[in-house]
Amino acid sequence: MSQRSAGPELLRLIDLIAKLPGLGPRSARRVALHLLKRNDTLLKPLAEALAEAGAKIQKCATCGNFDTVQPCAVCQMPGRDDGIICVVEDVPDLWALERGGSFRGRYHVLGGALSAIDGIGPEDLGIASLVARVDAGGVREVILALNATVDGQTTAHYVADLLAGKGVDVTRLAHGVPVGGELDHLDDGTLAAALRSRRGV
Amino acid sequence: MSQRSAGPELLRLIDLIAKLPGLGPRSARRVALHLLKRNDTLLKPLAEALAEAGAKIQKCATCGNFDTVQPCAVCQMPGRDDGIICVVEDVPDLWALERGGSFRGRYHVLGGALSAIDGIGPEDLGIASLVARVDAGGVREVILALNATVDGQTTAHYVADLLAGKGVDVTRLAHGVPVGGELDHLDDGTLAAALRSRRGV
Repeated sequence: MSQRSAGPELLRLIDLIAKLPGLGPRSARRVALHLLKRNDTLLKPLAEALAEAGAKIQKCATCGNFDTVQPCAVCQMPGRDDGIICVVEDVPDLWALERGGSFRGRYHVLGGALSAIDGIGPEDLGIASLVARVDAGGVREVILALNATVDGQTTAHYVADLLAGKGVDVTRLAHGVPVGGELDHLDDGTLAAALRSRRGV
Repeated sequence: MSQRSAGPELLRLIDLIAKLPGLGPRSARRVALHLLKRNDTLLKPLAEALAEAGAKIQKCATCGNFDTVQPCAVCQMPGRDDGIICVVEDVPDLWALERGGSFRGRYHVLGGALSAIDGIGPEDLGIASLVARVDAGGVREVILALNATVDGQTTAHYVADLLAGKGVDVTRLAHGVPVGGELDHLDDGTLAAALRSRRGV
């Protein structure tokens, strides 16, 4: 869009929206127009919600989750087992596990995975703070709930090596057939893993 | 995401982002996390740009374009032909024509197209204000640059009927082969229209 047909405020808004993940220049224009047409019902509430989130939400110093309280609500919640720490790559993974609702321990968010290509080393992730939490005592088990990707599994091996000999059980999520999944659509690696880990019925 | 793992501020932000076109709950969570990780470089500038746009940008009373000045920059621009009005469905169409830069008249944004299914009638669009602009005099030609969809063409017919007998030329954009397009990939209707409108070389 040329400078002539839209003011600098609108161009700046579109440029910023285009920086969001999954949005490009065309969809950013569409979003900006959608917002401008709904000034009172969407644009202003969104501007306020963003300002409020930016001012209030911070990273939990203990686990790395995002919340308005320090430490975060999950770290503060009573009745959860402090002896089990579930290590995840990023906050959406924590949210996904909490949606499931079957894990009642604590979390530790690494903030990513080791990646030689992207130049992400151990010092860029929350690995040292995880080791410190384990060294502080009281932890019986560390569950490595990392993505089943090359980077995720590299990170899992690295963390498992660091925690070896510290007297904690280090476990990982099971590989297998997704609930509701059809065998015909599964890749060979998953099928082989499910077969190896077969259980009595 | 459950209430337990994220505060109400974050849930509200995600709900609002999920209302944007092309975004759902999952991509809204991704966008919210992307923003929270870039508090100073993206979240705060975006919140400010939104607040500024919401406060300053308004619909042009003459043509319906969005701008911070009233009437908009295109309506104010000297050296454009007031005798030609290009009618478009929505503001991105105006932006697209301005990007091309080959039209030097004025615009009129209808704000949509007639649609029986969506319950959009003539009174919901800027049709009366278009007729008023033509009735005010000085207009020689009205170009109906509406989408080549059923709704767009219905609207074009309706507007053309309203303007008949007012002493203005009512024209529409040419149908034909897109520049750079391959005949093999064109639909039959476009090919037939291009053939009917063939020109000497």
